[in-house]
Amino acid sequence: MNYEPKNKDFRKKVQASFDRQKFMGLIGAELVEVTPGYCEIKVPFNESLTQQHGFFHAGVISTLADNTAGYAAFSLMEADSTILTVEFKLNLLAPGKGDVLIGKAEVIKNGRTLTICRSEIYAFRDGNATLCAAGLSTLIELKNKNDDR
Amino acid sequence: MNYEPKNKDFRKKVQASFDRQKFMGLIGAELVEVTPGYCEIKVPFNESLTQQHGFFHAGVISTLADNTAGYAAFSLMEADSTILTVEFKLNLLAPGKGDVLIGKAEVIKNGRTLTICRSEIYAFRDGNATLCAAGLSTLIELKNKNDDR
Amino acid sequence: MNYEPKNKDFRKKVQASFDRQKFMGLIGAELVEVTPGYCEIKVPFNESLTQQHGFFHAGVISTLADNTAGYAAFSLMEADSTILTVEFKLNLLAPGKGDVLIGKAEVIKNGRTLTICRSEIYAFRDGNATLCAAGLSTLIELKNKNDDR
Amino acid sequence: MNYEPKNKDFRKKVQASFDRQKFMGLIGAELVEVTPGYCEIKVPFNESLTQQHGFFHAGVISTLADNTAGYAAFSLMEADSTILTVEFKLNLLAPGKGDVLIGKAEVIKNGRTLTICRSEIYAFRDGNATLCAAGLSTLIELKNKNDDR
Repeated sequence: MNYEPKNKDFRKKVQASFDRQKFMGLIGAELVEVTPGYCEIKVPFNESLTQQHGFFHAGVISTLADNTAGYAAFSLMEADSTILTVEFKLNLLAPGKGDVLIGKAEVIKNGRTLTICRSEIYAFRDGNATLCAAGLSTLIELKNKNDDR
Repeated sequence: MNYEPKNKDFRKKVQASFDRQKFMGLIGAELVEVTPGYCEIKVPFNESLTQQHGFFHAGVISTLADNTAGYAAFSLMEADSTILTVEFKLNLLAPGKGDVLIGKAEVIKNGRTLTICRSEIYAFRDGNATLCAAGLSTLIELKNKNDDR
Repeated sequence: MNYEPKNKDFRKKVQASFDRQKFMGLIGAELVEVTPGYCEIKVPFNESLTQQHGFFHAGVISTLADNTAGYAAFSLMEADSTILTVEFKLNLLAPGKGDVLIGKAEVIKNGRTLTICRSEIYAFRDGNATLCAAGLSTLIELKNKNDDR
Repeated sequence: MNYEPKNKDFRKKVQASFDRQKFMGLIGAELVEVTPGYCEIKVPFNESLTQQHGFFHAGVISTLADNTAGYAAFSLMEADSTILTVEFKLNLLAPGKGDVLIGKAEVIKNGRTLTICRSEIYAFRDGNATLCAAGLSTLIELKNKNDDR
């Protein structure tokens, strides 16, 4: 779908918010792309991110699912708004085996208060992608609340 | 509910699995308690775990929700089984503001293949608890597959 | 939890809304109880409500999960508000075998705009209850919009 | 995605199962299409299916989301298997206003035991479709259990 951003500086605002999230630094996440209603984040493999079998931990996969959805939604919000995740649901479809994890989310409904996103998380191994999780999220816009308060 | 564990060494097995999850080390998580069908994990506050407003990141909260559910379920499984999260849904009810995050999960249905758990995540601040997330998870037992393969 | 209703006539308002839902009539649902933040609805067994094995259809179980959550939340809302379900997730724990299905929901977080509820659906058979589904729902209050517009 | 059905008579099996679901008859649902990993069901508007504002009840929308996912998954299962919904999550994106409700679901992961589907429910009004709900479901195959037992 094509969305018209309300804030022409949405990219800068998303990047600044992402950069303030220290947890993104801890897990080595990078904001790959943000367009109106869409966001992509990647996390290169690191042993510190693993579960008991040596693959990406579901907590890392969830973090990507939540954050890609959040920033996809945030890209469509007002300049002076902040955002909160209301809830999300994630199906883990395959183990997170790979060199890099890439999360992609897109807005499927941009309402006045609530925005709904779908996210997909892929594990890349030697260039081959495996869909390892699919999510559905609800986000809320908090108007007149700066994200960098 | 009262559950009878099939593996009398379930505590040791859960602790060993938890210890193999390097991501638990990265976020500073500790396994507080595991009884049949129940698990509690805590994460002390650390700036590296924050989102853009300086509170616990939803990714950390999700990780707790998923892992407490996983280990609550795992406590009821066979000695030679491993476990995977099929899916979970999490409602974020309040910002994760506090000195420590405590996740608690209990099994509400222990089926032959699938186990369903409810989790609750609390943020403690000066001794006062706020329920900051509520989850519902589905876990699958993989029989005859060692967790430490 | 104890909640203070904002509308002292909440019972009458919930009953009136329930009565306007023609689908409740079609499935033979009855509003059993509504207290602040809590709602109970029952549906006696009828062959027209069955799935392929002769048990209550998951669609009926979902309807109960959604409607009990909706009215538990609605009981706490303003007199001149209406309500919409934002989303819900339901785990089906056991087949809906029984003479009557009873759904119960309680509010776990009553926010300014959004209310979160947990619901449980029981199938009663010769007086014995089986928990056949557990849900988690998000509802939104639409202020200054009459429910009977 | 392209899926290879294990049962060449999958269409007949899905139709027979659908026809045994008396609840489908009660709400006037018709099986529109079933191909490997895909299912479409429609429900024409009827006043008996409404919520308090005269639109399709969320219970009907949920029923479609669940049943389309179930039969999309069932189309890929063995001839002598039956199926159960493990869980589903549904976001209600717009009121169910229209002459007919059409649900579509597709399999996004067909595992050995579990199958994951996405569903979308559209309300058609004078030929214009509105996406009124998006779901994500988990289904389980019960092998060697006839669906018509």
